[in-house]
Amino acid sequence: MSWEALIFQTVLSFLSEDQVMNSSPLIEKLIESLRCLPGVGIKSAQRMTLHLLERDRVSAKVLSDALAQAAEQVGNCDRCRILTEEGTCGICSNPRRDRSLICIVESPADVYAIEHTGSYRGLYFVLMGHLSPIDGIGPAQLGLEALQARVTEEDIDEVIIACNPTVEGDATAYYISEQLRETKAVLSRIAHGVPVGGELEYVDGGTLTHAFAGRRAIEVKEND
Amino acid sequence: MSWEALIFQTVLSFLSEDQVMNSSPLIEKLIESLRCLPGVGIKSAQRMTLHLLERDRVSAKVLSDALAQAAEQVGNCDRCRILTEEGTCGICSNPRRDRSLICIVESPADVYAIEHTGSYRGLYFVLMGHLSPIDGIGPAQLGLEALQARVTEEDIDEVIIACNPTVEGDATAYYISEQLRETKAVLSRIAHGVPVGGELEYVDGGTLTHAFAGRRAIEVKEND
Repeated sequence: MSWEALIFQTVLSFLSEDQVMNSSPLIEKLIESLRCLPGVGIKSAQRMTLHLLERDRVSAKVLSDALAQAAEQVGNCDRCRILTEEGTCGICSNPRRDRSLICIVESPADVYAIEHTGSYRGLYFVLMGHLSPIDGIGPAQLGLEALQARVTEEDIDEVIIACNPTVEGDATAYYISEQLRETKAVLSRIAHGVPVGGELEYVDGGTLTHAFAGRRAIEVKEND
Repeated sequence: MSWEALIFQTVLSFLSEDQVMNSSPLIEKLIESLRCLPGVGIKSAQRMTLHLLERDRVSAKVLSDALAQAAEQVGNCDRCRILTEEGTCGICSNPRRDRSLICIVESPADVYAIEHTGSYRGLYFVLMGHLSPIDGIGPAQLGLEALQARVTEEDIDEVIIACNPTVEGDATAYYISEQLRETKAVLSRIAHGVPVGGELEYVDGGTLTHAFAGRRAIEVKEND
């Protein structure tokens, strides 16, 4: 046998066909189903399945119920479009929130992030995406008509646009500000600049440019 | 105000209390339930929840059913203790498997890994752990009595011990080989050495020592 044929044979032996696992169909189905979760591949799904079945069946049952209930009952708030199982979400129906402020965000995750800071007490409007002609997402899909009606009819003092600082987010913010220009509400956009706790050295140029353009005078308070 | 008081006030403003999220109870419950999965923290659980509810409710329902079914119906094979929803697993009941070979492994994941190679055609025995006095896991918990009965009564030619090459795995392997010494089956342990595709330079000392101790003569085949 020539040396080329030998190498070829050795390489071939590494590429032998994957065999189908001779396991239980229910376990296979659970592994396959877990892969619908973002960030979960075949190995993680297998590890999760074995963990649940070997050590934590109670949690598996609880998770199953939570999934079924949420998938069936959770819808969108009829005012701010955030995910909720009630007609109007807890934020929109909370009488202690400031009803003259609306913050526009792209997704429910943004609302959670803002709520987590505890520094904003107004209402929200969730676009559930951003303008994207390629994906067929236009003003109608983002509910911009409802937003405009709400800002026009209700007593809104300020609309804070908190779209992501990406190309699509910027375009969406620009479009919304054009739409709402005629209303009496003040339009604003959250500040872009150096993240708190960050070091100037490691901040990218675009962010630094924004930070300089958006600089503010330091107000020195009078203290005794 | 002194400069110390100023610094103190600034630091305090960063440590403001986390607010409770004013979200839907069903979503909260789903996020909490997802955290039972290994490797899933609060951020991943939130991302998974929003992904399922915003984009993939069908998968959420499928996953819910798969979890409920598996948690209720999957048990252990009465012969090899692997997870299965039938009394006897597909491997044990497959007439094409070599019934004179038993491979002892610590967990079902090990069986999947071995099956995936497609190079082993015998049966298995899954210990579901290793000897660990601290956790109260002794020979009874590992089903070693059933294993001994099986090796003694059935026509087993070889028992391949494939416990993990850890301290506990080695101790378990040693204990099992002591238990089975009286039977007529040949006892063997899978080889420990340099992983295929690895480079000697990066292999640890213990593995290299094993690799040298377990070296084998190269058999040169006669070719035309």
